[in-house]
Amino acid sequence: MKNTFGQNISVTIYGESHGEAIGVVLDGMTPGIPVDDAFIAAQLTLRRPAGRISTSRQEQDAYHIVSGVFEGKTTGTPLCIMIPNTQTRSKDYAATRSLARPGHADYTAACKYHGFEDYRGGGHFSGRITAGLVAGGAIALTALHGKGIRIGTHIARCAGVDDRGFGDLTEDIRRLETMPFAVLSEQAGDAMLQRMEAAAAAGDSVGGILETAVTGMPAGVGEPWFDTLEGMLAHALFSIPAVKGVEFGGGFAMTDLPGSECNDAFRMDGDRIVTATNHNGGINGGISNGMPIVFRCAVKPTPSIYLPQETVDFYRKENAELQIQGRHDPAILHRARVVADSVTALVLCDALAGRFGTDYFMTD
Amino acid sequence: MKNTFGQNISVTIYGESHGEAIGVVLDGMTPGIPVDDAFIAAQLTLRRPAGRISTSRQEQDAYHIVSGVFEGKTTGTPLCIMIPNTQTRSKDYAATRSLARPGHADYTAACKYHGFEDYRGGGHFSGRITAGLVAGGAIALTALHGKGIRIGTHIARCAGVDDRGFGDLTEDIRRLETMPFAVLSEQAGDAMLQRMEAAAAAGDSVGGILETAVTGMPAGVGEPWFDTLEGMLAHALFSIPAVKGVEFGGGFAMTDLPGSECNDAFRMDGDRIVTATNHNGGINGGISNGMPIVFRCAVKPTPSIYLPQETVDFYRKENAELQIQGRHDPAILHRARVVADSVTALVLCDALAGRFGTDYFMTD
Amino acid sequence: MKNTFGQNISVTIYGESHGEAIGVVLDGMTPGIPVDDAFIAAQLTLRRPAGRISTSRQEQDAYHIVSGVFEGKTTGTPLCIMIPNTQTRSKDYAATRSLARPGHADYTAACKYHGFEDYRGGGHFSGRITAGLVAGGAIALTALHGKGIRIGTHIARCAGVDDRGFGDLTEDIRRLETMPFAVLSEQAGDAMLQRMEAAAAAGDSVGGILETAVTGMPAGVGEPWFDTLEGMLAHALFSIPAVKGVEFGGGFAMTDLPGSECNDAFRMDGDRIVTATNHNGGINGGISNGMPIVFRCAVKPTPSIYLPQETVDFYRKENAELQIQGRHDPAILHRARVVADSVTALVLCDALAGRFGTDYFMTD
Amino acid sequence: MKNTFGQNISVTIYGESHGEAIGVVLDGMTPGIPVDDAFIAAQLTLRRPAGRISTSRQEQDAYHIVSGVFEGKTTGTPLCIMIPNTQTRSKDYAATRSLARPGHADYTAACKYHGFEDYRGGGHFSGRITAGLVAGGAIALTALHGKGIRIGTHIARCAGVDDRGFGDLTEDIRRLETMPFAVLSEQAGDAMLQRMEAAAAAGDSVGGILETAVTGMPAGVGEPWFDTLEGMLAHALFSIPAVKGVEFGGGFAMTDLPGSECNDAFRMDGDRIVTATNHNGGINGGISNGMPIVFRCAVKPTPSIYLPQETVDFYRKENAELQIQGRHDPAILHRARVVADSVTALVLCDALAGRFGTDYFMTD
Repeated sequence: MKNTFGQNISVTIYGESHGEAIGVVLDGMTPGIPVDDAFIAAQLTLRRPAGRISTSRQEQDAYHIVSGVFEGKTTGTPLCIMIPNTQTRSKDYAATRSLARPGHADYTAACKYHGFEDYRGGGHFSGRITAGLVAGGAIALTALHGKGIRIGTHIARCAGVDDRGFGDLTEDIRRLETMPFAVLSEQAGDAMLQRMEAAAAAGDSVGGILETAVTGMPAGVGEPWFDTLEGMLAHALFSIPAVKGVEFGGGFAMTDLPGSECNDAFRMDGDRIVTATNHNGGINGGISNGMPIVFRCAVKPTPSIYLPQETVDFYRKENAELQIQGRHDPAILHRARVVADSVTALVLCDALAGRFGTDYFMTD
Repeated sequence: MKNTFGQNISVTIYGESHGEAIGVVLDGMTPGIPVDDAFIAAQLTLRRPAGRISTSRQEQDAYHIVSGVFEGKTTGTPLCIMIPNTQTRSKDYAATRSLARPGHADYTAACKYHGFEDYRGGGHFSGRITAGLVAGGAIALTALHGKGIRIGTHIARCAGVDDRGFGDLTEDIRRLETMPFAVLSEQAGDAMLQRMEAAAAAGDSVGGILETAVTGMPAGVGEPWFDTLEGMLAHALFSIPAVKGVEFGGGFAMTDLPGSECNDAFRMDGDRIVTATNHNGGINGGISNGMPIVFRCAVKPTPSIYLPQETVDFYRKENAELQIQGRHDPAILHRARVVADSVTALVLCDALAGRFGTDYFMTD
Repeated sequence: MKNTFGQNISVTIYGESHGEAIGVVLDGMTPGIPVDDAFIAAQLTLRRPAGRISTSRQEQDAYHIVSGVFEGKTTGTPLCIMIPNTQTRSKDYAATRSLARPGHADYTAACKYHGFEDYRGGGHFSGRITAGLVAGGAIALTALHGKGIRIGTHIARCAGVDDRGFGDLTEDIRRLETMPFAVLSEQAGDAMLQRMEAAAAAGDSVGGILETAVTGMPAGVGEPWFDTLEGMLAHALFSIPAVKGVEFGGGFAMTDLPGSECNDAFRMDGDRIVTATNHNGGINGGISNGMPIVFRCAVKPTPSIYLPQETVDFYRKENAELQIQGRHDPAILHRARVVADSVTALVLCDALAGRFGTDYFMTD
Repeated sequence: MKNTFGQNISVTIYGESHGEAIGVVLDGMTPGIPVDDAFIAAQLTLRRPAGRISTSRQEQDAYHIVSGVFEGKTTGTPLCIMIPNTQTRSKDYAATRSLARPGHADYTAACKYHGFEDYRGGGHFSGRITAGLVAGGAIALTALHGKGIRIGTHIARCAGVDDRGFGDLTEDIRRLETMPFAVLSEQAGDAMLQRMEAAAAAGDSVGGILETAVTGMPAGVGEPWFDTLEGMLAHALFSIPAVKGVEFGGGFAMTDLPGSECNDAFRMDGDRIVTATNHNGGINGGISNGMPIVFRCAVKPTPSIYLPQETVDFYRKENAELQIQGRHDPAILHRARVVADSVTALVLCDALAGRFGTDYFMTD
């Protein structure tokens, strides 16, 4: 299936950047999960652009629960959330319709949809679609919180500036959950912002790395082949626009170490089995081992830049120069991180419901 | 589904390291694809251990086509291949049954399967299962070759030694396809082998990075969300044991660059649309753009090392020391690369059949 | 997946009878299919209640295309249609909340959703949800029409009255497509209406049999096992509320005949291969044979009757008597037949796209 | 997916009638289910032809568990069972290769597989493939038995002869489970056998109706739309060769009754909620209500008859006469009923595991 993900708890997304609305259908969620409007709104706010480092398009994201909630709780039947588009300025796009923006999906969309795609503002390819994932993810996060599972993402690196690494995970995640610009080191955050603003001023853009940690995940969830936890998470995470790499635990850096340094020694912590290190990011053989799940997403610099670029007109089949119009973000890391949390929550809910049944998230 | 992957062309795997046989069911493949025994055997040989840098277990991989082939060609109905296990020495494992090998799935398997799992030699978690993927992948590769699509993987880095990067892809892939130790630079290969042997001598292991390139992929295949080409490939690639990271095109390194350097400018090459660079690895917005698809897999050092390790006995719930017995590989990169080719071929066949129909690979 | 059906072209439904809206997401449809508002509206009108033989609830079904249509044609990305609920009178239901209506899903919903379900008007179980299937099905029908495939359903039997059987299929389907009360014999229709009205007057309800024919279906679509055309169609058709049986071709009646009468002799019709009879309903071995696909759905009498009924209060766990309030249909056959057409269209589009690729329905 | 069915517990089938072997991969089954060789063998024997009313081909069905069983119990990983073909007489088929047997899949197979299909003995379309379903189903039945769920099927009607209806279900199912010719009335069985033999003598064949009952199914399993219990069961049951209709509870006959007679009044039975009648076959709104699940499958007369038949040569595209060779069954009802039990068991296991988690069938 194309715009649907998940087996036991699934999510379906729809909408275009400049259409009437975008939205999400969350299906299979355990009934009785409290739906907290303030929390959904807060999550959507974390995704919304802010200040000089974001697009000037300001959507209120006045979301609307169309179905699946009754008396303030999930019913267990499809939960549809719609988020109207209000701030569309589509004329920005018509002039450059067949000029393929480098790094964007304009050309590949035309190859796949034969020119029938809604090209305005990226259409269905727009990062705006992730608002639906955030809204649906908020329900998933609430379900996970009820089972003591928490997720936090920080900007581990941006434009060459490193944040400090995770320390006390419980405390770090607690802070990250509500932080608008999610970094663990204030100083690093300031330096990142400076570089983002410099890029914006230059009509350019920057990228970076998001790092996510999950605590409280029970051991024994995931599959040895295909539906490994890594594979399921990566599958969904690559849907976040601009993500071009996903690594778990020690990831690429770990490949230079000998096995004797990489293996995570098991040991008893009271009567709990833990590992001394966590190079495997909480996953062995595709299955959670009870340690924190840790992974990183490589986010390429936003492709929409104001500098002139060489490209082609793919209808006329001739070389062309492109000067992008419209409103764009010089960086999306700070907005994408709540999308990473949301996507992670959706994948883990699905895996947990598959393992323990659809009533798993009931708390009474 | 757990051990099945793919929608239109799917693959199901079964078997355990020390069971009677392992195997694969490939379903939905276009009828009429020639099944070349010599090619399947050659592919399985590329996966087989060799020399000092591999396990001393030597399986002949005398595979057996059980169904789905008639008069030398695929029928279009399920193609089952069985590969008997013959060289099992299961007593190696009984003594250490409940000692969790660090970095391995022993403990997570017990959490998931409650002790009913076949623990001998890693059971269903064993790298041996990938022989089925290679056998099924050989059929998929033949189908792709018929459409001019070719796949090659080299050991881009091992134990800190870098191979040279891809150059002339057509020529590089042609050489890699049949090379037992797949490197582009002979010198680099020698240095890698030296470090692998040193690790083996020390009872330790090494890891590295596999890099894969695909040429001839038509533009317009993949989905904007969820079933992005990146997401589908990564989902399956994370099934290759020890893979802990997957990155496309410029990947993690690209995140430090500004957008103006990262965007791949489009331009006309005769009447073909190409990109000047390929930082996006042939994929824009989840969809192939007609350029080579390029990605890298991080392969952690093999967890089975002979050095003594701290661990726990997960039945007795007490700390323990582990001295691994059995036969193990000090490195698996050179064996895993044909698995990467095979998995890639299976994913691409599925995506192409979904886009263009189940007859896509017919050549007459 | 629970509220999603189809692999290559899929449909996801959401909404409750007394919620804000119900709707559908159609995904994977070929881009460029014309979206004809008048046709969608006409199809929804065929499903709407009418006169004495239907519920007095009159929804305008002012549907709303939220996404997936651009410049009057499908884009190929998710096509979301929302149909607001406006005529809800929910207080009718509160009093009898835990009295299980016999033949209805009140009790089973409570078993599954633990009382968190929206019980008003049947909630997500309501026949009203089928309006979404009709709206999505209208797009699917347009796609099929473009390939010369047409679908028609008549009330083959109602309350013991038989319609005449199919004759000239092309002509019969042409007439049925727009007929409000879909019967082939006017006389039979009058007799059915009389019995429906008599049942309504008695506070009772009637059932019957819908018969569907599909012309123009190419041979070679479907699978030998599991995803047989019969299995796929039946899977979806059993979602139509009150359907309790599905039979193809000669169906149950055919089981009394000898093979020599049942087998459909093949013969040449010019250079086309046809069958002399069509006891197999156009399907051999799960795969279309190019003859018309014919099947029948058994529709039980509407369970909502005004006569007093014995039941239980499933919260108090005690016997109770139920006198249903609310607005209900004494028969739903005449409304359900356009749902049968729509569901059939959705299933066939999916099967055809799987077989011939996602561009199959392009007409230029 | 084509030859795979089920989400949480799935089954994949492979093989051809005259190939080396047929088989099944059962995946996702709860670990720790005892695998009773005698039971599997007994189930396969129930499917095997016997006496004058069956094909003279006698396969020993010496099945072979290739994977997924360890120390006599399911491991939870893929359980592959292979059943070699030994009694193949393929030359029977070569002469009539392109003569489409009426009622068979020869012609549709050629349309789909373009002549690459293994045509011998029906190839992958052969009823022989159901032996895999029976072997896999035996494991599923064992799992269900552990939870007190039992399934029984009888020949409710054959060649116009009716068996008596179900009475005491517990007792009836207990008897049916091991009965070679599964009828509730010995007299009816004798009459059926007489007609089967008469048909065999005449070179003709007969059909009939199988009726299945399931006891012990918990309430609250199934979905309101698409994955209704009826839809899931029907989807799979239509894979049983020759099944052309499936009806639940009162089915087609019920459509003539008024709602007041059809609705199943709820009432307390001690503190259990039951229904006074069971016209809905244990399913309301797609979800089990705790009453026995009852359904019937229409089985058309076996298409392979020895009488001469008119047909076409689909390569030469000309009319032809066909005199079937080979070994065939004049009736398959008595063999198909264990297939119905098996398929039902597989579907219910999947639905239960989806609802209650993959450990559901653990009994300790």
